[in-house]
Amino acid sequence: MKDNNKKKKVALIGCGLIGQSWAISFLSAGFSVSLFDPTEGVTEAAKEKITARLSDLQNHGLISKRKISDYLNQIYLAPSISKAVEDCVYVQESGPENLDIKQELTQNIDKATSENIPIASSTSGIPTSLYANEVEGNYRCIVAHPINPPHLIPAVEIVPAPFTSQSTTKTVKEIISSIGKEPLELNKEIPGFVVNRLQGALLAEAFNLIKEGICSAQEIDKAISEGLGLRWSFMGPFQTIHLNAPEGIAGYVDRYEKMYQGMFEHLDIEWSSVIKLGLEEELLKLYDLSEREKYEKDRDNRLTKLILHKTKT
Amino acid sequence: MKDNNKKKKVALIGCGLIGQSWAISFLSAGFSVSLFDPTEGVTEAAKEKITARLSDLQNHGLISKRKISDYLNQIYLAPSISKAVEDCVYVQESGPENLDIKQELTQNIDKATSENIPIASSTSGIPTSLYANEVEGNYRCIVAHPINPPHLIPAVEIVPAPFTSQSTTKTVKEIISSIGKEPLELNKEIPGFVVNRLQGALLAEAFNLIKEGICSAQEIDKAISEGLGLRWSFMGPFQTIHLNAPEGIAGYVDRYEKMYQGMFEHLDIEWSSVIKLGLEEELLKLYDLSEREKYEKDRDNRLTKLILHKTKT
Repeated sequence: MKDNNKKKKVALIGCGLIGQSWAISFLSAGFSVSLFDPTEGVTEAAKEKITARLSDLQNHGLISKRKISDYLNQIYLAPSISKAVEDCVYVQESGPENLDIKQELTQNIDKATSENIPIASSTSGIPTSLYANEVEGNYRCIVAHPINPPHLIPAVEIVPAPFTSQSTTKTVKEIISSIGKEPLELNKEIPGFVVNRLQGALLAEAFNLIKEGICSAQEIDKAISEGLGLRWSFMGPFQTIHLNAPEGIAGYVDRYEKMYQGMFEHLDIEWSSVIKLGLEEELLKLYDLSEREKYEKDRDNRLTKLILHKTKT
Repeated sequence: MKDNNKKKKVALIGCGLIGQSWAISFLSAGFSVSLFDPTEGVTEAAKEKITARLSDLQNHGLISKRKISDYLNQIYLAPSISKAVEDCVYVQESGPENLDIKQELTQNIDKATSENIPIASSTSGIPTSLYANEVEGNYRCIVAHPINPPHLIPAVEIVPAPFTSQSTTKTVKEIISSIGKEPLELNKEIPGFVVNRLQGALLAEAFNLIKEGICSAQEIDKAISEGLGLRWSFMGPFQTIHLNAPEGIAGYVDRYEKMYQGMFEHLDIEWSSVIKLGLEEELLKLYDLSEREKYEKDRDNRLTKLILHKTKT
């Protein structure tokens, strides 16, 4: 994949922390990047910060040992949006989380960029429908939301608007995969997308536990960092419960739905009906229950290694 | 600590998966264990399974290289509850998740056990108030809830009932710490305790996303295992958001409460008022904001190492 990226250039508009992280991901995957930030001095400062982080990552062995000067030769500091997007195969906008600013910025990028080149936004919460509805080339607008710190976390949410073309979504997923990231495609827009909704639901309960005086913040943090978070660092929540009952997710829901319903007043969704909407079928296909023992062994092996790793670091 | 555990014996009542895991944790920390399960043959079978897992863990280097026969000499197979609890400093009950059975089992353990010896239950959801209310020695009854797989996951929830004595809670926390586990003490009982409430809140939203057709189960799993779960494997949710804004949690709530409220119809708790209930104060004490840059560097270092570790395994 990486060889294919050589001689390809992407434009990164907005050079704060998120823009800098994107630069690191694209550069280490072989791309050239052109940077532009409307605030004076930010583009230049970004280049220095990118350089410092690149050598950090090299020292850790996370990216390959090329000369830093080789990377620097791949960075173009652009004086304007139109110069930045010249000859680029992809544009990633990482401007402020403000609807008005994002609308105007996207308009300007769209006007300057050749047709069919995708324009992705790093927004963590504003759907493309809201900020790009009036944009002429809205068919190539889409969300590609990374997770902080984006140069380290693989997951990137890909959220097309109803007006986004299928070929845009496809191209964006391919580019994101080609830089070693893990694209998660949403079928449709929803406030907060998936990542922040999952985080928000957990946080809401954490705040509730504090309000009810159940325990301290430190105990809640440990329930995750010394508990649930260990499994979740390599195994998602559905995989976890699917493998926690001999009959898979249906058995788990059968056994525990009542317990969970007893916890939350507002739990108005019947899990047992949701699993019939393709969820059980998908999980049975992903994780064959006849191999459950093997999965359990794998889980325990990975946990053992993770705990040894944590002890060392 | 481990030397102090030598010559001390704990009784493990109920020898399914959870009881076996407790045995491994206690044995590897130097304790002797006496096992009893009411179902015929289960106690003997447990000993074999414990032996197999102990050598697995030794091969991984997670527990020290003593002769397996040394461990086996520390296991007593008891023919009855009263024989099992003889000379024990602690009793851990891991019976079925059934209120009637747990009530009767706890009565029987209480009658057989010397006074002041703690009787902890592995229950994941039944509060001590419910199953031990009628027990004569209820002052020494308490929940010590481990997380699956319990011989690997450090967190153990310690949940006293209103009638549990303070010295019971203190002793149980000390014993749990002395076997290398991380006790999380709850101030009061609540259905599902903390761990399953946090897991339940996240699962409820995951089921909701499936019901709304937003994405597949696999995408949700990746949002955790390639996203949020990486940070959470060494950093709890409050620490994460506290360090995500220059002003700490107050700044984070100020910036994002509206976004989160926009996601959930039933979010009826004002986060901005909850942080005044000691939460902000606690977090500022735990993580001094003047050291925020250092914390951020630490986080990135740990993430880098975790990602390298995941790539290897």
